[in-house]
Amino acid sequence: MTKLANDTFLRALRREPTEYTPIWLMRQAGRYLPEYNATRARAGSFLNLCKNPELACEVTLQPLARYPLDAAILFSDILTIPDAMGLGLYFAEGEGPKFKNPVRDEADVAKLAVPDPNQELRYVMDGVRTIRAALGGKVPLIGFSGSPWTLACYMIEGGASDDFRRIKTMLYSRPDLLHRILEVNARAVAAYLNAQIEAGAQAVMIFDSWGGALADGAFQQFSLAYMRQVIAALNLEAEPGSSAAMRVPCIVFTKGGGLWLEQLADIGCDALGVDWTVNLAQARARVGDRCAIQGNLDPMALFASPEQVAVEAINVLDSFGRPKAGTGHIFNLGHGISQFTPPDHVAALVEAVHTHSRKMHLRT
Amino acid sequence: MTKLANDTFLRALRREPTEYTPIWLMRQAGRYLPEYNATRARAGSFLNLCKNPELACEVTLQPLARYPLDAAILFSDILTIPDAMGLGLYFAEGEGPKFKNPVRDEADVAKLAVPDPNQELRYVMDGVRTIRAALGGKVPLIGFSGSPWTLACYMIEGGASDDFRRIKTMLYSRPDLLHRILEVNARAVAAYLNAQIEAGAQAVMIFDSWGGALADGAFQQFSLAYMRQVIAALNLEAEPGSSAAMRVPCIVFTKGGGLWLEQLADIGCDALGVDWTVNLAQARARVGDRCAIQGNLDPMALFASPEQVAVEAINVLDSFGRPKAGTGHIFNLGHGISQFTPPDHVAALVEAVHTHSRKMHLRT
Repeated sequence: MTKLANDTFLRALRREPTEYTPIWLMRQAGRYLPEYNATRARAGSFLNLCKNPELACEVTLQPLARYPLDAAILFSDILTIPDAMGLGLYFAEGEGPKFKNPVRDEADVAKLAVPDPNQELRYVMDGVRTIRAALGGKVPLIGFSGSPWTLACYMIEGGASDDFRRIKTMLYSRPDLLHRILEVNARAVAAYLNAQIEAGAQAVMIFDSWGGALADGAFQQFSLAYMRQVIAALNLEAEPGSSAAMRVPCIVFTKGGGLWLEQLADIGCDALGVDWTVNLAQARARVGDRCAIQGNLDPMALFASPEQVAVEAINVLDSFGRPKAGTGHIFNLGHGISQFTPPDHVAALVEAVHTHSRKMHLRT
Repeated sequence: MTKLANDTFLRALRREPTEYTPIWLMRQAGRYLPEYNATRARAGSFLNLCKNPELACEVTLQPLARYPLDAAILFSDILTIPDAMGLGLYFAEGEGPKFKNPVRDEADVAKLAVPDPNQELRYVMDGVRTIRAALGGKVPLIGFSGSPWTLACYMIEGGASDDFRRIKTMLYSRPDLLHRILEVNARAVAAYLNAQIEAGAQAVMIFDSWGGALADGAFQQFSLAYMRQVIAALNLEAEPGSSAAMRVPCIVFTKGGGLWLEQLADIGCDALGVDWTVNLAQARARVGDRCAIQGNLDPMALFASPEQVAVEAINVLDSFGRPKAGTGHIFNLGHGISQFTPPDHVAALVEAVHTHSRKMHLRT
């Protein structure tokens, strides 16, 4: 395998010394970039774009051509697994993802099976291989999946929801049924992420986008426990083909999970993503040297002037403080970048993070 | 003034001993009750219902006729203040509240003025007086307002929002302008709540429904600071007309604010509302004897069977634990009750809270 030209992101995840704070952005390949919209138009639809490895590779690389970002992330959707389970993913214009066959009763649950990532999800693995080759060792490639709970939310609700009434009705009245779904999802997510690692992903991230909708107590039982199962089943210890036994780091991001950081730090992951409600100094104190921390600028801060974007970025860096041995900070937003973001503000952000953090890391 | 037949709610707020844990439910007068829907149909619209003191009184009392709740809450909308400022509140069917004249620029901000609660908002005060008289001292009446920040969200966005892009763009690029709006809102909220107290509200609650959308740091500057201003300006020390100088307790509820409880406990309020993501035992330890705590059952738990609803209610009570001298717990949901809730499940909840907590309070 090619040696990485820039492994700052991986070193920060492993809590090793770095010269500056690495940065990448959730949804960095996306609608705020005109070149993305052009490729998407050529693809015909968002799903076509996800399912075509060459086009997925093209959009994955677009933000890296504009900005000196420290990682690439596979362009895909978090709902590929339930789609491969036969639920029939589609996108209603302006309405977000939907499923033709949501999981509603015992019979639907009985039909669920773990998809073979190298068969039904082969297009994703082809994408990973294509992107990894195209990157040529410039920066590491992140693979990802939704968490078992977050996938279940969409599978049961049939789409986005603002109250999660269907899945929570199941949680409170038929927890056995929900546990069966989550059990299948956990095995499916582990197999999917392992196949991505096998195909070349150099770090993996679990998006627990809806974990924060759960009550304390329910979160631990219905999301955290299954993420722990997934991580226990991942082949993280040696990146395939690497000469040294380099661990493939795993990042967990529970949006709205700031109250549970200690518990999240304890499920075997290498880094915790945190949203903008979290105070980074406090998060660092709570998590200690168990995990690196990834985050957490409010994506809406990118609507300020480029000068103010730089000020906000510095505030985030200073809030975490200078990384010491055994701690690591990866700069990111606290959620996906907005489609309305001016692209030159992103340039100002990346520049400010690199420049300011280089000074912080130099300080003795 | 009539002596209260049931002052358990007020005593819990004042962290005085009670025989059981009092309960009321956010949005307890609402669409899950067929009798509410009948009154609303007679009113013609939600706004007509809010603006008619007799009808507002009628729906306020409906849940008390069904369930032995320990408090009544004024039936009104959180957007009465911006409506009185001339922003033109209306409800588009199925879309939630909207404003005809949202606040978008310097000129709009310059026009904002504090409405006279006894003129433009007289219908609310008439409602408070009517309800207070109709209650006849059965249980206390809660008055309420949106927080300055939450009102500003609607005023600037022009309605509900899922990313708060407009107000946050102002926050990050024109904080001076946003501070001017929040300054006016804080004075308006204080005048409004003082008028409600004068008219007969025996406790007041500030709904900071969107405080949890703010980044750490921004929350303290743009929401917390203004709630502190409001509370400092409230006439809480003596309930008008009461013989003894009984404090009118003030409850603050920042949805999604679980990370900031220590800071919220420090702004002069008597109780903190918490949503279901918060662990009550931890909240109690963090807040200590500074505030009572109100919450925090997941409203979706009411979709379980009545037997399971009772189990979930007991879990919440046990999570808080037995109130000791100097602490207080008021049972509530972590958010407004869903319109799809079966009314008999609410009966099971109230019964379980009263029965189980009576046993807890008896334990020595």
